Amino acid sequence: MSEPSKRPIAVAVLGPGTVGSQVVRLLAEHSEDLAARVGAPLELVGVYVRDVSAPRQGIDSSLLTSDGHGLVARADVVIELMGGISPARELILAALAGGASVVTANKALLAAHGPELFEAADAAGADLYFEAAVAGAIPIVRPVRESLAGDQVERILGIVNGTTNYVLDEMTQRGLDYDVAVKQAQDLGYAEADPTADVEGFDAAAKAAILASLAFHQRVALADVHREGISAITAADVAAARDSGQVIKLLAIAERADGAVAVRVHPALVPASHPLAGVHGAYNAIFVEAAAAGQLMFYGQGAGGVPTASAVLGDVVSVARHRASGGRGPRESKYADNAVLPIDDVFTRYSVRLDVPDRPGVLSRVAEVFAAHGVSIETVRQIADRGTAGLVISTHRAAERDLAATVADLRVADAVDSVVSVLRIEGD
Amino acid sequence: MSEPSKRPIAVAVLGPGTVGSQVVRLLAEHSEDLAARVGAPLELVGVYVRDVSAPRQGIDSSLLTSDGHGLVARADVVIELMGGISPARELILAALAGGASVVTANKALLAAHGPELFEAADAAGADLYFEAAVAGAIPIVRPVRESLAGDQVERILGIVNGTTNYVLDEMTQRGLDYDVAVKQAQDLGYAEADPTADVEGFDAAAKAAILASLAFHQRVALADVHREGISAITAADVAAARDSGQVIKLLAIAERADGAVAVRVHPALVPASHPLAGVHGAYNAIFVEAAAAGQLMFYGQGAGGVPTASAVLGDVVSVARHRASGGRGPRESKYADNAVLPIDDVFTRYSVRLDVPDRPGVLSRVAEVFAAHGVSIETVRQIADRGTAGLVISTHRAAERDLAATVADLRVADAVDSVVSVLRIEGD
Repeated sequence: MSEPSKRPIAVAVLGPGTVGSQVVRLLAEHSEDLAARVGAPLELVGVYVRDVSAPRQGIDSSLLTSDGHGLVARADVVIELMGGISPARELILAALAGGASVVTANKALLAAHGPELFEAADAAGADLYFEAAVAGAIPIVRPVRESLAGDQVERILGIVNGTTNYVLDEMTQRGLDYDVAVKQAQDLGYAEADPTADVEGFDAAAKAAILASLAFHQRVALADVHREGISAITAADVAAARDSGQVIKLLAIAERADGAVAVRVHPALVPASHPLAGVHGAYNAIFVEAAAAGQLMFYGQGAGGVPTASAVLGDVVSVARHRASGGRGPRESKYADNAVLPIDDVFTRYSVRLDVPDRPGVLSRVAEVFAAHGVSIETVRQIADRGTAGLVISTHRAAERDLAATVADLRVADAVDSVVSVLRIEGD
Repeated sequence: MSEPSKRPIAVAVLGPGTVGSQVVRLLAEHSEDLAARVGAPLELVGVYVRDVSAPRQGIDSSLLTSDGHGLVARADVVIELMGGISPARELILAALAGGASVVTANKALLAAHGPELFEAADAAGADLYFEAAVAGAIPIVRPVRESLAGDQVERILGIVNGTTNYVLDEMTQRGLDYDVAVKQAQDLGYAEADPTADVEGFDAAAKAAILASLAFHQRVALADVHREGISAITAADVAAARDSGQVIKLLAIAERADGAVAVRVHPALVPASHPLAGVHGAYNAIFVEAAAAGQLMFYGQGAGGVPTASAVLGDVVSVARHRASGGRGPRESKYADNAVLPIDDVFTRYSVRLDVPDRPGVLSRVAEVFAAHGVSIETVRQIADRGTAGLVISTHRAAERDLAATVADLRVADAVDSVVSVLRIEGD
């Protein structure tokens, strides 16, 4: 066995923002521990910024450079934390082409250009690690990619967006309206001034594509992910869920279905007894069902500069170990080729809430509409309140297309005043 | 970059018991997936048993051999699932000396002979992986060893023994007495006929030693682990915990404390709102607090043949990938040398439950005893019930030695009829 190299490993950071500045700090503060764990010291050789004249607190100004290509050419390990597509993509490709290993937290880039980047890593024999791109500090990429490599993942249900979990949790715990909860999340810095990427599920969809690719050993593109956000969820939906012993969570779901796979992001009713129901505030959690391992859950902080920096540095230690002692981590696993089901063909359970006239015969008419589309009713709960009548109907597993046709007919049925909400039921 | 070797990787299984028989089954059933993930086929070349004449369901009898040393000499990857110290230790050492990589689930062997085995692996440049030795199917070794390699683990609180969690959960959920819950666990196969190794915390202590070694990058021996079991926990303790908004869990705890580390296994009161409080039945969970990552939790099945086989096969894929494509996984990280605190020097919070005479002045006398030893009281709850009086006293953080001295004085104090229970409070 060869002794580990004592030559320093040259590290470049691209983008000293919320995460990058913490990575720079931790590299310095833990330099001795990191050297012991890697088997060679890590030396920060530069930090790429667009404007070198702007001072960056905690970063020696002599390390700043706006010459990204020059910097990656000098690095053994490149840490990309700029976000966005360009110039992140070009600099990562240049780094890999030069033989450097890359660690990135850039989920949007991976979801859009993953195949190109992984092929470049393979061509160079270099590592491309991305633990921080999904669920921040939570180790989920490595467990799915390595710990479960001898198993078959059947389903992943993930709370992978902290902003929406915070909003839904505040609505659940305190009865807030959606708009009030979003405003509160913005005031606390959990949500952006324009919260669209979070509340409409775009962020979660990018993570769902990455998780599905890992879990099923094939490429799943962002365009394969059906996406719905939480902006239509009302305080009344949350209250009705509670009355049924459920909570509403925005879930990223990836599951096998009869030789195909299905990947989607949408709000869902989860039983209050499910481990995911206990995930509060801005925390994330990923629930995994595997054929042999059974049910697993991974819980922690899904965002934030310091937690995300922990995930980045874990990857840095892994790829630096490979450089110090030889070898390489697992490549992208993409040998499988299951079809990705369109949402119409997905089966799940549904909860349909209706306002109905308070007169005899309504339930039987409503049940006829479900039966006409082959959608089997599991439970019906009747609600009479202040002169109005309501029905909460939970179905057995049904195809989305049949449920959608049922709902379309319910909207024009005499026996129905209005379809108040339609939510999928997951996790039971 | 070299293409992965297509030469089959020779795999030997030592011990086709509950876990081993599942490993053999899954190796066969998933052979194509495993070959794709490894980059070379895995070929089972033999199964070591003591008695080849006993038929083993699902295993081709031509693979059975009682010549363990001959078998490991023919293997690239040796999977040790015999348990016990001998001949597991000798066969693992022989395998490593011959250059084979080893995957084991043998926590007792690692706790007792880990240093010798890791040194043999280093000398041979071979992998020694052991994900299945701690918490069964839950990926915890790899996350702590790799994902958190750039962070500093401050504390681990683990429910790492499913039998005791089942017993305590039944006592909590259904008000069962300890003996009844243990009998039920035995009837269901969760507990052995002699449940000592589980209920007295020996199994958890071996796992605590392994977790602490990984988390703190140093060797922690089984003898360093303070150990108390759950056999003294009563239904009354569980009920009193519930009245205080707590549940009782057997925890494996490893934590940093002023430049030293402390490792212990004992029952503890955990707030009902803590993520560990929601871990029911025979499930395990490991709660990790890291300096940068913050709070993480890993949840799943901690035992059972099929789940544990998943963890074993994940390790098999990792070490086989290294053989197919070069390189090696991280070695044992043992550069740190923190003192391991004796239990007397450990600080935590305590709950002391007393039966006291129902007369004025008792609380002030009891408080004096705590104060005399410098133990600060946080809350007192008085219970008057059917003519008796009780006090439940929760302390601020105090040293075990001071708390023990306090309890010794309480036992002989006029103001105290009896010290009913003393439990540590963790997780808040």
